[in-house]
Amino acid sequence: MIKKINHIAIVVPELTAAIDFWVAKLGLALDHVEGVPSQAVEVAFLPVGDTAIELLQPTDEASGVARYMQKRGPGIHHICFEVDDIGATLDQLRAEGVPLIDETATVGSDGRKYAFVHPKGTGGVLVELYELAT
Amino acid sequence: MIKKINHIAIVVPELTAAIDFWVAKLGLALDHVEGVPSQAVEVAFLPVGDTAIELLQPTDEASGVARYMQKRGPGIHHICFEVDDIGATLDQLRAEGVPLIDETATVGSDGRKYAFVHPKGTGGVLVELYELAT
Repeated sequence: MIKKINHIAIVVPELTAAIDFWVAKLGLALDHVEGVPSQAVEVAFLPVGDTAIELLQPTDEASGVARYMQKRGPGIHHICFEVDDIGATLDQLRAEGVPLIDETATVGSDGRKYAFVHPKGTGGVLVELYELAT
Repeated sequence: MIKKINHIAIVVPELTAAIDFWVAKLGLALDHVEGVPSQAVEVAFLPVGDTAIELLQPTDEASGVARYMQKRGPGIHHICFEVDDIGATLDQLRAEGVPLIDETATVGSDGRKYAFVHPKGTGGVLVELYELAT
């Protein structure tokens, strides 16, 4: 059911300084940076092994990611797992009584489906699910 | 320099309930559970892709992991990266001015070398480094 970890997201106040640590000092590779207006973030993609670190810089102080950072400070924001069938996964979690942030998946412009599981159901970890377009 | 993510560690109050979510409900595989007395934790190993989730239950309320959970609540504790040469990595980070928790690596009973980088140098993320025994 779970194929792999697609990415681990880290919220940062400022991408340039974060890239200086993760890439220039620690030695990860920088694939690319892109804006994700729907989430109000600029994202740097750092592939490592079969997964990736994603650095998220909020671009709107009222967004969910910005409010998370205001409350908890910068650091790890969520883990994203790839699944075969996100609809079946959400149905199973719901049947098990796990609280969901998104009752159904959203379909992105690239065909990817995604949804978040509530951290109160996971022991304090914000979990994202991806079903990639085939 | 960085080969892959060895594991993502999640601190939990109680392993049985955590395994119920991550394994029985979400569908990750449980490899094994073992005690790590030097860190005062019981650890459940859940491989996923080329990395793993490690669930940490503190076994001593005065330990570093227990105090982290008391302060921040349960959730993600650290990310561990595998490197080729941990001594060279620590030297490079020190030369770049990155604060380290461990100035030199500790060698575990299985020959693995490990050290922690201070979260104040990484933007709020506790980073562990591993050099596995060859």
